[in-house]
Amino acid sequence: MASWEDNVRRVEPYVPGEQPKQKNVIKLNTNENPYPPAPGVAQVLKEFDTDQLRLYPDPEIKGLVSAIAKVKGLQENQVFVGVGSDDVLAMCFMTFFGSSQPILFPDITYSFYDVWAELLRIPYETQALNSTFGIDVSDYKKKNGGIVIPNPNAPTGVEEPEGALEEIIRSNPDAVVIIDEAYVDFGAKSVLPLIDKYDNLLVVQTFSKSRSLAGSRIGFAMGNPKLISYLNDCKYSFNSYTMDRLTILLGKASIEDVDYFETQVKKIVKTRSWTMEQLKNLGFTAPDSKSNFIFASHKKVPAKYIFEELKKKNIYVRYFAKPRIDNYLRITIGTDEEMKSLIGVLDEIIRHTDEMKP
Amino acid sequence: MASWEDNVRRVEPYVPGEQPKQKNVIKLNTNENPYPPAPGVAQVLKEFDTDQLRLYPDPEIKGLVSAIAKVKGLQENQVFVGVGSDDVLAMCFMTFFGSSQPILFPDITYSFYDVWAELLRIPYETQALNSTFGIDVSDYKKKNGGIVIPNPNAPTGVEEPEGALEEIIRSNPDAVVIIDEAYVDFGAKSVLPLIDKYDNLLVVQTFSKSRSLAGSRIGFAMGNPKLISYLNDCKYSFNSYTMDRLTILLGKASIEDVDYFETQVKKIVKTRSWTMEQLKNLGFTAPDSKSNFIFASHKKVPAKYIFEELKKKNIYVRYFAKPRIDNYLRITIGTDEEMKSLIGVLDEIIRHTDEMKP
Repeated sequence: MASWEDNVRRVEPYVPGEQPKQKNVIKLNTNENPYPPAPGVAQVLKEFDTDQLRLYPDPEIKGLVSAIAKVKGLQENQVFVGVGSDDVLAMCFMTFFGSSQPILFPDITYSFYDVWAELLRIPYETQALNSTFGIDVSDYKKKNGGIVIPNPNAPTGVEEPEGALEEIIRSNPDAVVIIDEAYVDFGAKSVLPLIDKYDNLLVVQTFSKSRSLAGSRIGFAMGNPKLISYLNDCKYSFNSYTMDRLTILLGKASIEDVDYFETQVKKIVKTRSWTMEQLKNLGFTAPDSKSNFIFASHKKVPAKYIFEELKKKNIYVRYFAKPRIDNYLRITIGTDEEMKSLIGVLDEIIRHTDEMKP
Repeated sequence: MASWEDNVRRVEPYVPGEQPKQKNVIKLNTNENPYPPAPGVAQVLKEFDTDQLRLYPDPEIKGLVSAIAKVKGLQENQVFVGVGSDDVLAMCFMTFFGSSQPILFPDITYSFYDVWAELLRIPYETQALNSTFGIDVSDYKKKNGGIVIPNPNAPTGVEEPEGALEEIIRSNPDAVVIIDEAYVDFGAKSVLPLIDKYDNLLVVQTFSKSRSLAGSRIGFAMGNPKLISYLNDCKYSFNSYTMDRLTILLGKASIEDVDYFETQVKKIVKTRSWTMEQLKNLGFTAPDSKSNFIFASHKKVPAKYIFEELKKKNIYVRYFAKPRIDNYLRITIGTDEEMKSLIGVLDEIIRHTDEMKP
């Protein structure tokens, strides 16, 4: 082994969900939105002057920051924009979690949190969710170097009661508390109104799910101007021009179309209700979901088996071979048609399995 | 001060060159290409199906990695792609510079190197360039935790002799040596052929200058598969989907058009020669440039004064208030017309200043 390898930062990288290359796949594995982005997005592309690409983008991403601030009722200096909410969260971990005390997050949660902590050498301690996948507020009242909680949680879809989150934020004035609201638009309540009350609260959201722009990479954080300013300092010290010219314009067009956004979200919530009902009829159990996915477990048939059988039929869902959740499937809400196909195939799989057992 | 601030990573961020918002500016301050990107880039935009943006991009960025590999005569596993070469370099610093020994780079150089080192808590030691802005190879033979050298150097435009770079790479088998070739396409010789010979050599290039895509954010690193694999591990641990769907396609269209690339580069090199001659006629001195900018100093008129006078006339060049280079201007090569305007205004400024002095 060459000795330069001694100085390499070795990590166990995050493994994103499979991105199958073949066509005719029903893709319910990475929580993408089944509907296209707002019509204004296509319009931006159509009108864009390609020659502009020879020039650097605005490092302050003003056009998009200002559009987000307007829609969210904030000042521009309360908004930070990054290349997807993963980029925003990575930058938050780097900026705010410099304590020697461990940061805290749930044991069942977005599987990137421990990866960032390992990468950035941040000590961490996971807190066990209860049997209904809820957090216990008292777990977050011990000494810590920061807190990150997704709401609704991924991959469970479970929403925390607002009171619980506020209690955690209030009890930790000496730590930055990040509420990761990647899925909040699908029916959960945002803690955004609390950012004026608590200077240690940072709320992170994304364009990838509810705004159908996973392919464009846009995430953002909202908090008091001091938090945002520290975040920007670190961002400018890592990569000053993070967001390309086109994406800034596409993002602006997307967030400005509030009507389209609300209509699509409503459609998905409706499809989620229908799907939940069908899954229960097939013998699945699943916690109430406030996200664009359902976290389902079957009473008789193992999740891993169903996952593999679905894949054979070109239906992709997400399966995590992890303690406590290895008998669950995370199923993204697609179109009505896609969910009908899914339910049809699940019905077959489960009936076939029943027949195999005498 | 809230005590969560004790744990904030405090940094002195990199300050990018000004991006003036008004029109009718001659912008020669951030080394952008005056010509539009390859025609295929506009074509991609025209044909792009916006609905695809609802889906995550390929985290492996295969389409672009493979196009770069093909044009450069490499294997795919020798290429790493990031959001601009700043993103690539930041990731390299994070991945490879984990030693307690200081990393080494020139005292006059790209002003982001010390910012990354500070951000990532990497010890560093700058090595003084000689009076003609060249490096002294012996400075890079001491114990170190890694080396980064830009070639041609920025902001000087000076090319290092290839032999010198190879000697540094060969003398440091225990450290990763990064040659930052952001400007190499404008007439310097790349060390790329050496990556098969030295497993500690990483070559970084960008689409921002020679390929007219500063606005799209594409940079890449080339090296032996082991280096690339370590880089990818860290990238996947920071942000798995860094590059958006559109940019992957635009980059591919750009790098595949080799003829267009060569024609534009030749035009800029020709304009550079003309500009250099005119500057000398006006009493400027400047080292020979192998980049798309000229680093010029006037015998009588202070650089800061010229910088400010040019700005009044809506001509932006770059001025660094830094030791050893605070009497220089870094002037990007624009179109022939832009350079003619620049020379005309410089002529006025210098004649006017001459007249003021009896």
